[in-house]
Amino acid sequence: MTVWSEFSVMIHSDAEEAVANLLIELGSAGVSIVNQHDLMDLPEYQYEELLDRDDPKYLTDRIIVKSYFYDVDNAEHLKQHIEDQLATYHDYGLNTSNFTVQYATIDEEDWADTWKKYYHPVALTRFLTIVPQWQAYEPHHSDEIVLKLDPGQAFGTGTHPTTQLALQLLETTMRGGETLLDVGTGSGVLSIAAAYMGAGDIYAYDIDAVATRVAAENIALNNQSDQINVAVNQSLDNITHETDMIVANILADIIIPLTADAYRLLKPGGTFITSGIIDSKKEAVIAELERVGFIVEQMNQMTDWIGILARKPLTTKEKELK
Amino acid sequence: MTVWSEFSVMIHSDAEEAVANLLIELGSAGVSIVNQHDLMDLPEYQYEELLDRDDPKYLTDRIIVKSYFYDVDNAEHLKQHIEDQLATYHDYGLNTSNFTVQYATIDEEDWADTWKKYYHPVALTRFLTIVPQWQAYEPHHSDEIVLKLDPGQAFGTGTHPTTQLALQLLETTMRGGETLLDVGTGSGVLSIAAAYMGAGDIYAYDIDAVATRVAAENIALNNQSDQINVAVNQSLDNITHETDMIVANILADIIIPLTADAYRLLKPGGTFITSGIIDSKKEAVIAELERVGFIVEQMNQMTDWIGILARKPLTTKEKELK
Repeated sequence: MTVWSEFSVMIHSDAEEAVANLLIELGSAGVSIVNQHDLMDLPEYQYEELLDRDDPKYLTDRIIVKSYFYDVDNAEHLKQHIEDQLATYHDYGLNTSNFTVQYATIDEEDWADTWKKYYHPVALTRFLTIVPQWQAYEPHHSDEIVLKLDPGQAFGTGTHPTTQLALQLLETTMRGGETLLDVGTGSGVLSIAAAYMGAGDIYAYDIDAVATRVAAENIALNNQSDQINVAVNQSLDNITHETDMIVANILADIIIPLTADAYRLLKPGGTFITSGIIDSKKEAVIAELERVGFIVEQMNQMTDWIGILARKPLTTKEKELK
Repeated sequence: MTVWSEFSVMIHSDAEEAVANLLIELGSAGVSIVNQHDLMDLPEYQYEELLDRDDPKYLTDRIIVKSYFYDVDNAEHLKQHIEDQLATYHDYGLNTSNFTVQYATIDEEDWADTWKKYYHPVALTRFLTIVPQWQAYEPHHSDEIVLKLDPGQAFGTGTHPTTQLALQLLETTMRGGETLLDVGTGSGVLSIAAAYMGAGDIYAYDIDAVATRVAAENIALNNQSDQINVAVNQSLDNITHETDMIVANILADIIIPLTADAYRLLKPGGTFITSGIIDSKKEAVIAELERVGFIVEQMNQMTDWIGILARKPLTTKEKELK
């Protein structure tokens, strides 16, 4: 009867998305993140159960990534495998020093509650709130967009700083009617938000077929399957249709090689929103943006994460044709 | 019959707000700004009349501040006075190298059009558009907030990068119901936007009685006089009522000395949004924010301007009382 195992990784917040992806790839039914933001903003959160809240190291830069596995054969073996994988992550520029991995067993009848109690509606901006699929939620304002996500399947919950930055820049940039390419769509959250804000046709790509399936489920949950096209694709390879906007909430090392493709696919005046950029990689991303011809218009930063809004300029000839 | 003079100052964009304030103080009926952003985003704008659009220096960092004076006795004398004032501005850390001042005379019957053609609705975000008071405007979306301003009297048009950054951070932070202090309200644009986003009581202060009059007019134009209280006040001196949010879109040299007062007046968990911070002053503002106890949560940058979102933390005791 005891079939669920909870594996918790405490690690530097830089590694959140990477760890979440790893755990999903290893077969977790889902992940949840416990971070400083939860502690500050969500008084209902029962953090006393989890950690020493006076631990200053935890409070400034560490998070707990919790994951849930069904019917694990050998928990100690899985723990070791997670540790081995995490040990390689510094090669990708992530801060994984002093991480810890722990596991515990959960009775099945307790599982649903254990799993869900770490999710709650999160207001990302005044106009945009992400709400777990199963949760009733009454908007505070008639003009508040309520974006439903099933984080039990999601690659992240839509509330990681990189996703928040991308959503803010979308909100800053969008006016409605724009066609959009979403590269590395993950849970689909950016495409779904864009559709709610009045985008035109949206094309959401991910290299991972699990991600596109999850995105399609979340898109259906928000009744946007007609507007958002989801497909497996590597970066922007072989994409040919011109677009008004491109969003890429991935990692700097993946963004840099696709920047020239983004420039090629954007209409003059079009915008390229990139996120998932750790501070130490910011200059490299900006250099590549400017090298291919983009103008950097805005940079937003939360903790060590950066989101960038860049624009493909109108040429003199294009200005004259206007 | 010829009574209007147009004075145009071409200067580094750093000095925009300072120059606009100077021209208003000297009696201009209003100012308008022509900048790179106008050229990029607003194809209807007739910039060919104004400047050599291929001048790379202009396109990267210079603006034109245009102002309109009624019945100038001695235009050459006024031009000299403006130049003398601008020459002192480098003492305030502003880049005023190689500015130029020009003037021209405008027939009265042409004046209204000359004056107004440089204003147009500007969508600051997907949800917030500033529209000149006299202009008809049809929102693109039913949930778009249309903020009316009379820029003929305004200290800036609400579209300067510092104001855009402050508005973005307000939109990121507000949830509705918060009490707000707006220090250095100027045209009142931040208080008006906050009221539209569902803030509770709002207190808007400015050291300048002309600004509070202009703010009151714009607040009335948006039918928010009951919700927003406007008063002349120096920084936050002698203010005692606790609040959920403080916005200060001024200049770093004014923000730094009021930071301790902001901390004192904010409730635990409350937020302090500062803008008007030129890149070179960013570290000094952050140092003061952290010295008095704030946690910097987000920084947004456009050109060389920075907006910062800081939070007053909950103490352990306050967390326990929750």
